[in-house]
Amino acid sequence: EEILSAVDGQLFAVWFLIGAALVFWMQAGFAMVETGFTRAKNAGNILMKNLMDFCIGTVVFILIGFGLLLGEDVVGLIGKPGLDIFTAYENFDYSNFVFNLVFCATTATIVSGAMAERTKFLSYCIYSGVISALIYPIEAHWIWGGGWLSQLGFHDFAGSCAIHMVGGISALIGAKLLGPRIGKFDKDKSGKIVKVNAFPGHNLPIGCLGVFILWLGWYGFNGAACTSVEQLGSVFLTTTVAPAIATVVCMVFYLDQIWQT
Amino acid sequence: EEILSAVDGQLFAVWFLIGAALVFWMQAGFAMVETGFTRAKNAGNILMKNLMDFCIGTVVFILIGFGLLLGEDVVGLIGKPGLDIFTAYENFDYSNFVFNLVFCATTATIVSGAMAERTKFLSYCIYSGVISALIYPIEAHWIWGGGWLSQLGFHDFAGSCAIHMVGGISALIGAKLLGPRIGKFDKDKSGKIVKVNAFPGHNLPIGCLGVFILWLGWYGFNGAACTSVEQLGSVFLTTTVAPAIATVVCMVFYLDQIWQT
Amino acid sequence: EEILSAVDGQLFAVWFLIGAALVFWMQAGFAMVETGFTRAKNAGNILMKNLMDFCIGTVVFILIGFGLLLGEDVVGLIGKPGLDIFTAYENFDYSNFVFNLVFCATTATIVSGAMAERTKFLSYCIYSGVISALIYPIEAHWIWGGGWLSQLGFHDFAGSCAIHMVGGISALIGAKLLGPRIGKFDKDKSGKIVKVNAFPGHNLPIGCLGVFILWLGWYGFNGAACTSVEQLGSVFLTTTVAPAIATVVCMVFYLDQIWQT
Repeated sequence: EEILSAVDGQLFAVWFLIGAALVFWMQAGFAMVETGFTRAKNAGNILMKNLMDFCIGTVVFILIGFGLLLGEDVVGLIGKPGLDIFTAYENFDYSNFVFNLVFCATTATIVSGAMAERTKFLSYCIYSGVISALIYPIEAHWIWGGGWLSQLGFHDFAGSCAIHMVGGISALIGAKLLGPRIGKFDKDKSGKIVKVNAFPGHNLPIGCLGVFILWLGWYGFNGAACTSVEQLGSVFLTTTVAPAIATVVCMVFYLDQIWQT
Repeated sequence: EEILSAVDGQLFAVWFLIGAALVFWMQAGFAMVETGFTRAKNAGNILMKNLMDFCIGTVVFILIGFGLLLGEDVVGLIGKPGLDIFTAYENFDYSNFVFNLVFCATTATIVSGAMAERTKFLSYCIYSGVISALIYPIEAHWIWGGGWLSQLGFHDFAGSCAIHMVGGISALIGAKLLGPRIGKFDKDKSGKIVKVNAFPGHNLPIGCLGVFILWLGWYGFNGAACTSVEQLGSVFLTTTVAPAIATVVCMVFYLDQIWQT
Repeated sequence: EEILSAVDGQLFAVWFLIGAALVFWMQAGFAMVETGFTRAKNAGNILMKNLMDFCIGTVVFILIGFGLLLGEDVVGLIGKPGLDIFTAYENFDYSNFVFNLVFCATTATIVSGAMAERTKFLSYCIYSGVISALIYPIEAHWIWGGGWLSQLGFHDFAGSCAIHMVGGISALIGAKLLGPRIGKFDKDKSGKIVKVNAFPGHNLPIGCLGVFILWLGWYGFNGAACTSVEQLGSVFLTTTVAPAIATVVCMVFYLDQIWQT
């Protein structure tokens, strides 16, 4: 009834914030995974990138991004930028801002792994400002802010398109622009690749910890926007079972490959 | 009254899932503790075990374990296996599945520490499948699934028997089968032990981090099934105070021992 | 209305405990930050301090501290010590004890960083017992326990005075008593400092992880005492935005300094 629904609103508003904190926590997971699975000499560089993309992202998201994402829709393309966070603080939806900010930061940080070990720190800071100020807010406006995709009925519950696809494509473009790490491929005179060199990660425990941090963060990432216990339970089930089975399948293929050689 | 009780149900259903996520997080704690306090050469092996026992456990728990644990009781010994998770997805209690799965995985992973540094990866995978598919589900059915122990009135709130005792006994059996690590004991010709060698852990910060992760996870482990604020507060009090005092007592004994020598 | 307010009480009582668990988690953050940013030879020492100050603090907080903090007010200066936790367990407010304990431990652990690499383990244990048994409980009684400051209308929502200022001043006193680390400054014959030596931290990933752990813990630290969704959202906004902007500002100053040299 009416009361129960009001109460559910309160309950899931608190969970919404806990979920946002878990998404923030994924920044730590990305930092650890990327550091652990690359070379020691790049550790400081990668850690700083994963810290700074959240911080720089926050600054530009306040100034431009949040308005572009959730401001009043302008011909289906962008939200109207504004600074309600400063001028209308009393009526500002704080929770919603935090929620959208941490998702924006996740989109940005997906890219850092794909460009690891071959990006200057300052270049990465600039990229990070651009994706958080413009790229993510605009495309997410199309989906979640009332833009043209949402007007067509497009549906994205937890960001598989708005976040993962956009982050992934940005990562692909970044990796293409940069090319492989120096020394990755040995070529013969004709330019044909004759050998692929491995660059093993330098710190397995840190890398593994990052995997667990990301997995824990996923419960918030996938579940934060839920509004009923059944829905949240379903999200938790999927978030637990899917990565577990995927990992087993990968291991089977990998062992099969080893045993055949 | 009636409404309050319905609302409390919702509230503790959400906490139930948060608690389950914290129990999942204990996998990371076990991985870090076991890696930090063993030798560097075994780090990759131990990390993979702690990751894979959760993943393999999930696969077999879906196929067999969950049915044996919570299926319709068969003469007090096992639950009737079934695949409701696939065939009756609409009415399936997702939260309950996640909750039972993470506890099952904890039982399995307790053993990995006791068998650290002397178990082949594949052997551990097989063990892990067996405990998650058969051993844990069957004995936990006796206690939590309506089996003969629960029919006798047996009571176990947060798994001291179903999880810790079973995990501990399995660990003891595993350790007995394996024997000590090579080089642990120097013996004279008659086979008498003349010297015990220490194998110091290789990474104290990682080991210590694991301790804190496990402690944080305990709040979920002990508290997830609570259904009132008073009960949850009591669990949090115990989970905070008991390990703290135990640690101080250990340190006093340890320092006493050092000062006497 | 009445029901909603009762329900909100339940909801924020559960969040109160989740927040307390997040504050506990900050112990791990302090341990990692301090270990990562100091020298490897001191890692074990610092880790043990951060573990033991929580454990020793718990013991003395039960015996003395909690009573001094929240017992019946005595002339505005201290609470009346007592052992209600043992003698009136049935009616004891468990949640409140846990909440106050983790804040007490945070106050104690702030100091360990300032005295890192030059404090004996046992001396630190004694300090830690004193601050948790006497210093924190008494001054926090003035603010939160009905003491003279609170009678004057003094207000401190999340401990900027009771915890950070007290922890910070204690740290300053500790650092002053200890003096700099051996070898920090090279002096000429007249005692003038001619060179400042850097002691770089030995483990950047661990230090960085500590930063993220502390940041995650802050959501609990600042938000645990909230009693409405709006208030909690506001706290989450501040806890996200303030450190992010501070970090960017620091980086700008730092880069500016580098480019000028």
